[in-house]
Amino acid sequence: MTTIQKNVEAASEKYSSAFTKGHLALPPAKKYLVLTCMDARIDPASAFGIDLGDAHVIRNAGASAVDALRSIVISEQLLGTNEIVLVKHTGCGMLTFKNEDAYGLVAKNLGSEAEAELKSRKLDFLAFPELESAVKEDVAFLKSSKLVPDSVAVSGWIYEVETGKTKRVV
Amino acid sequence: MTTIQKNVEAASEKYSSAFTKGHLALPPAKKYLVLTCMDARIDPASAFGIDLGDAHVIRNAGASAVDALRSIVISEQLLGTNEIVLVKHTGCGMLTFKNEDAYGLVAKNLGSEAEAELKSRKLDFLAFPELESAVKEDVAFLKSSKLVPDSVAVSGWIYEVETGKTKRVV
Repeated sequence: MTTIQKNVEAASEKYSSAFTKGHLALPPAKKYLVLTCMDARIDPASAFGIDLGDAHVIRNAGASAVDALRSIVISEQLLGTNEIVLVKHTGCGMLTFKNEDAYGLVAKNLGSEAEAELKSRKLDFLAFPELESAVKEDVAFLKSSKLVPDSVAVSGWIYEVETGKTKRVV
Repeated sequence: MTTIQKNVEAASEKYSSAFTKGHLALPPAKKYLVLTCMDARIDPASAFGIDLGDAHVIRNAGASAVDALRSIVISEQLLGTNEIVLVKHTGCGMLTFKNEDAYGLVAKNLGSEAEAELKSRKLDFLAFPELESAVKEDVAFLKSSKLVPDSVAVSGWIYEVETGKTKRVV
């Protein structure tokens, strides 16, 4: 067992011993979803004020709306959410590379079979060169998608990893 | 401004006023990633023991490894993580429907244009009929992928929304 795995078991022991929320329902109580980045410096519950049971939280590299579309449709159509809070952040890794860089790294580090798998899956890493415009573009993508009806409120925000502040963009 | 948006602003004010972690580096300090579900009843930081800055947290509907592959490759190749903790959970919405159900709901609720968008994107909702085998299948998928080298430790777990416990499966 790795140190990380031991840590999960210890955390589970501690968390479950004081756990009192076993009654919560499957659909989010406040009917919204937060889409943010996987970045290690973001704690959505504290930074964005999400109580347990209140909202779906989707996280991927860069808080990509395109990448999250499957989860968003499930959240809305099967579990009744009707608002999207999209939060990208300063210092995001997605600002630092392009698809060809990632493909090159995979080929160099993992070899030609891995590169071939990447190509056969046609993986688009969805990096972006500028933060604020990326927020606007993702919000525009969601608003233009027929899979996100006009009745769903969509807002776009930037979380500052330096200050802990979350600021509205759109 | 919606009630949810006001809530984000209030949470940001409170969180940032006591924020002391502006110095954290971009790469996760403990070099691992957690992949779990978007479910509103999961608080990964507390339940799995993740301190701010320690790990990437990827969340999507069902904690799907296939869906998360883009983010996983970025986490490993660009940001140096080398361990994956995959956690699905009891009472998951993904146990309750099939692709055709979701396609039917979209057609009924959002109309033919939305159904056409779903089809043109070939969205696979990646639902699963049984929890423990879904964990094993996703871990097997990651271990068999050339994009996840053998040096990456992969473990599979189930979080119990009823008890707050996280139990190792594989």
